[in-house]
Amino acid sequence: MNHPVHHIGIVVENMAQARGEYERLWQAEIGATEQLTERGLELCFIKCGNTLVELLAPLRADSTISKFLRERGPGLHHICYEVQDLKQELARLSALGVELLDTVPRPGATGTIIAFLHPKSGLGTLVELLQQVR
Amino acid sequence: MNHPVHHIGIVVENMAQARGEYERLWQAEIGATEQLTERGLELCFIKCGNTLVELLAPLRADSTISKFLRERGPGLHHICYEVQDLKQELARLSALGVELLDTVPRPGATGTIIAFLHPKSGLGTLVELLQQVR
Repeated sequence: MNHPVHHIGIVVENMAQARGEYERLWQAEIGATEQLTERGLELCFIKCGNTLVELLAPLRADSTISKFLRERGPGLHHICYEVQDLKQELARLSALGVELLDTVPRPGATGTIIAFLHPKSGLGTLVELLQQVR
Repeated sequence: MNHPVHHIGIVVENMAQARGEYERLWQAEIGATEQLTERGLELCFIKCGNTLVELLAPLRADSTISKFLRERGPGLHHICYEVQDLKQELARLSALGVELLDTVPRPGATGTIIAFLHPKSGLGTLVELLQQVR
């Protein structure tokens, strides 16, 4: 795998409670919480060495994060690899038969575009690809 | 969080098939498969930037990995943070009320000692701590 891990997405039930617990147990320095209202979620990043942990919490009951919580409970959600050219990478993977949840890149957290691959193409793992667009 | 992410553990059903798929889709360069017979599993590491992806597959039906596969299916399993002094870190976390699955460090993959924390103390996420002992 040539792509570095950009972050690991972890679903939590309540962002304020989760931030408090990460601070209490790990003395974590946590970035600002960002709300992605279109996707019905809020997120924040914690720098852990050269990789980020992303905490994700639902903003409403019909978000994909709420569905995940109902079906699986809180915990590990996805792994995100950083790519240099997301559009080209999606074309390459599609040609290999990978099922894409996003066939075209869409906005992610600030300064990024992202796309998700279907878990069945990731041996059960939900994979996100991310390109910096600063 | 001061501890860097050492690796992300991903459970797969069949190691040979998973290695083939990671090579096919990602041209992954994958480390040798190592068998931990006492734990009933085999594992390999894939270097992804400064973080590792660890693939885990069962060697027998009564291993914890087999139980995970039956209950959750293949996919993300745990996140592992590297610490400098595992024994001291376990004592610190225990004093904060964290439930430890391993109260004393035990051997992990070659050159490491490890301990797992209970997922309920990780807001639903299974957390491993690792110390290099090379």
